[in-house]
Amino acid sequence: MCAQLSSRAHLLPESPFRQLLPYAEAAKKKGVDVIHLNIGQPDIPAPATALEAIHEAYFDKLPYSHALGIESLREGFAGYYSQTSPEVKPADVVITNGSSEGLYFVLFSLLEPKDEVLVFEPYYANYSGFAIMADVTLKAVSLHVENNFDLPDNDTIEKSITPRTRAILFTNPCNPTGRVYSYQELKRLGELAIKYDLLFIVDEVYRVFSFAKPCPSILDIPELRDRAIVIDSISKRYSACGARVGTIVCCNPQLLTGIDRLCKLRLSAPFVGQLFAQAALDDSTDYMEKVKKAYQRRRDLVYDRLRHIPGVETYLPEGAFYGFVKLPVENAFHFCQWLLESFSHHGQTVMMAHGAAFYLTPGMGRNEVRLAYVASEERLQQAMDCIEVALQHYPHSTLVKELVHNTNQ
Amino acid sequence: MCAQLSSRAHLLPESPFRQLLPYAEAAKKKGVDVIHLNIGQPDIPAPATALEAIHEAYFDKLPYSHALGIESLREGFAGYYSQTSPEVKPADVVITNGSSEGLYFVLFSLLEPKDEVLVFEPYYANYSGFAIMADVTLKAVSLHVENNFDLPDNDTIEKSITPRTRAILFTNPCNPTGRVYSYQELKRLGELAIKYDLLFIVDEVYRVFSFAKPCPSILDIPELRDRAIVIDSISKRYSACGARVGTIVCCNPQLLTGIDRLCKLRLSAPFVGQLFAQAALDDSTDYMEKVKKAYQRRRDLVYDRLRHIPGVETYLPEGAFYGFVKLPVENAFHFCQWLLESFSHHGQTVMMAHGAAFYLTPGMGRNEVRLAYVASEERLQQAMDCIEVALQHYPHSTLVKELVHNTNQ
Repeated sequence: MCAQLSSRAHLLPESPFRQLLPYAEAAKKKGVDVIHLNIGQPDIPAPATALEAIHEAYFDKLPYSHALGIESLREGFAGYYSQTSPEVKPADVVITNGSSEGLYFVLFSLLEPKDEVLVFEPYYANYSGFAIMADVTLKAVSLHVENNFDLPDNDTIEKSITPRTRAILFTNPCNPTGRVYSYQELKRLGELAIKYDLLFIVDEVYRVFSFAKPCPSILDIPELRDRAIVIDSISKRYSACGARVGTIVCCNPQLLTGIDRLCKLRLSAPFVGQLFAQAALDDSTDYMEKVKKAYQRRRDLVYDRLRHIPGVETYLPEGAFYGFVKLPVENAFHFCQWLLESFSHHGQTVMMAHGAAFYLTPGMGRNEVRLAYVASEERLQQAMDCIEVALQHYPHSTLVKELVHNTNQ
Repeated sequence: MCAQLSSRAHLLPESPFRQLLPYAEAAKKKGVDVIHLNIGQPDIPAPATALEAIHEAYFDKLPYSHALGIESLREGFAGYYSQTSPEVKPADVVITNGSSEGLYFVLFSLLEPKDEVLVFEPYYANYSGFAIMADVTLKAVSLHVENNFDLPDNDTIEKSITPRTRAILFTNPCNPTGRVYSYQELKRLGELAIKYDLLFIVDEVYRVFSFAKPCPSILDIPELRDRAIVIDSISKRYSACGARVGTIVCCNPQLLTGIDRLCKLRLSAPFVGQLFAQAALDDSTDYMEKVKKAYQRRRDLVYDRLRHIPGVETYLPEGAFYGFVKLPVENAFHFCQWLLESFSHHGQTVMMAHGAAFYLTPGMGRNEVRLAYVASEERLQQAMDCIEVALQHYPHSTLVKELVHNTNQ
């Protein structure tokens, strides 16, 4: 019989967001209430006007849209970007099946096989899989919680640029760290992109969730407009992960040639999701402001709880809805599994994503986790209770060992 | 500046279904009524119960579904296949973003780069693009309208099988020809699949549209169950091309390992499309029977008109909703463009897909077109009027040349 898994499919990593789901399901069967902080799926209701648009729109079939997206939706996204950036035209906007498809299309259509893409680790774990699909190689520059995930100096970054490097892939605000990078920091990276003639691809799906100050778009920087490619999505900001509506925004029409062909090949993005997206973009209520404040309150709650747990090292995220946290454990993957398999506190436990999956460098992130604060404040308090108590009982806690060690001395 | 189009994106063919759209749009701007027979987008309303399911379902966000699809929808598809095949289980069903994603996932996860896939030409033109995305090579066995697109004998087929061949990719009913292949014919191909240890991938998106007798599924053949992979979609049968809901059905769980990882990577198929699909599969009205009859009447109309047009060579399609037709022209692409650019009859013209795009062998299909009968009988009559009159006026008609030649003798 033929091979059951091609060598390239074999390289695809297990999803850190879903890998432990069987354990979560088993826990639920035992009656444990699992608080899901493992995946960035918002729990906050979507904008009412956009939900109404689905329920009230008249259509007697679900047709293909234009391969590049419904024209009025492309106008909507162009308008959204033009609010902060120099003019973006509808022709600069391509609607994709979520940002997943968008990133894959960009990598496939603009890079040659084995070309290198510079990322900053920890990065969104699924980038590894899209790189394998597009047969390109990620090279990572490491960032560290100890210095708030600051970008290193140019010399350090340039050490990871080789003659095969063709693009920088950046996320702002960052998933998984929640760090927001400034206009000046983007500009500094942009100068490297110009110096080495690299594409500058920025995943901006969390851009509206920047708490202290607005998060700049890469499109704001005029000198980068010919090489800047934005990957965006409505999934997070409108609680619509299942709409499967993302976008590629690029003001250099030459760079969209191959993406145009890929879009025609897969025919269409989802019709109803696009109707929803258009209504959401047109929404004139203060929905977005309210949602941002809700995430900010949760961010504060989670940060405040975590920094008081002994042995936990954390950082105040400036945006997105994630915390990336160092735990007093040797193997966070094992700890996450143990939480589901062997632990409960008042009938509850927590599911998180283990940190190593967000790094390219072997060994990094082993004692880290990402948690998504996509649950109510009440449930987040309960989740923090669970983590706090679990770390006191986890048999492989390095903190317990330290305590034991200290006691034995 | 970086390359604007990777070498692989450069290989992606222009879409024969959309390539001439700018000409169609220009014709419309001149006031011409363009009858679109170029793309397989049904004009018949979707099942009312499924549309109601969208309008009436309660949801306050659009969530990710399970990466492999909503469980009850997988059950629905399993039930649909189990009606005619030995039992298909929900675990054998994976929900995809249309059949496009399904086919790409199968090729990527089960074949190595440069592996060969056997197809029968004319084949669905977009297979060429998916093969390029998955870096596999198509090899074509030619079929001919003159003998009703019959499969050739085994010796002829085996000449196209090489040591790199890993799969047969088949469509039944065939897009673009409308030919329906019998259980015995599938079985004969299946014996070759067993002999050469090939996967047998069958695109069955038109299976419900088989007019004279039911079209068998590849899953019906017990001895092929371990290597059979069905690609399916709700797009055509429920007039829901924009739902972006397709499926991969495979009863060999080993073959789904890589597909599972790809699904998790891209997170989810569209949520509302899946709600629609489930309601459509549950629909207990005689919707499907009525739709099939409507297509059959159109098939009869189009065939009857075409076979009376001088110089046109055609064949009575047994299924799907396409006609694949030889025209008395030297270059069907040019004729299709001319129809949009330079022709109208009573203020109308026709858009079709040119035949060469459905072949791998250079030079084949140059005088052929595919037309999709996705318009009312009234408009199909008008479309046939247009084609008939156009062929009398087209300056490069080979028929005109023959007539002139005969008159000059």
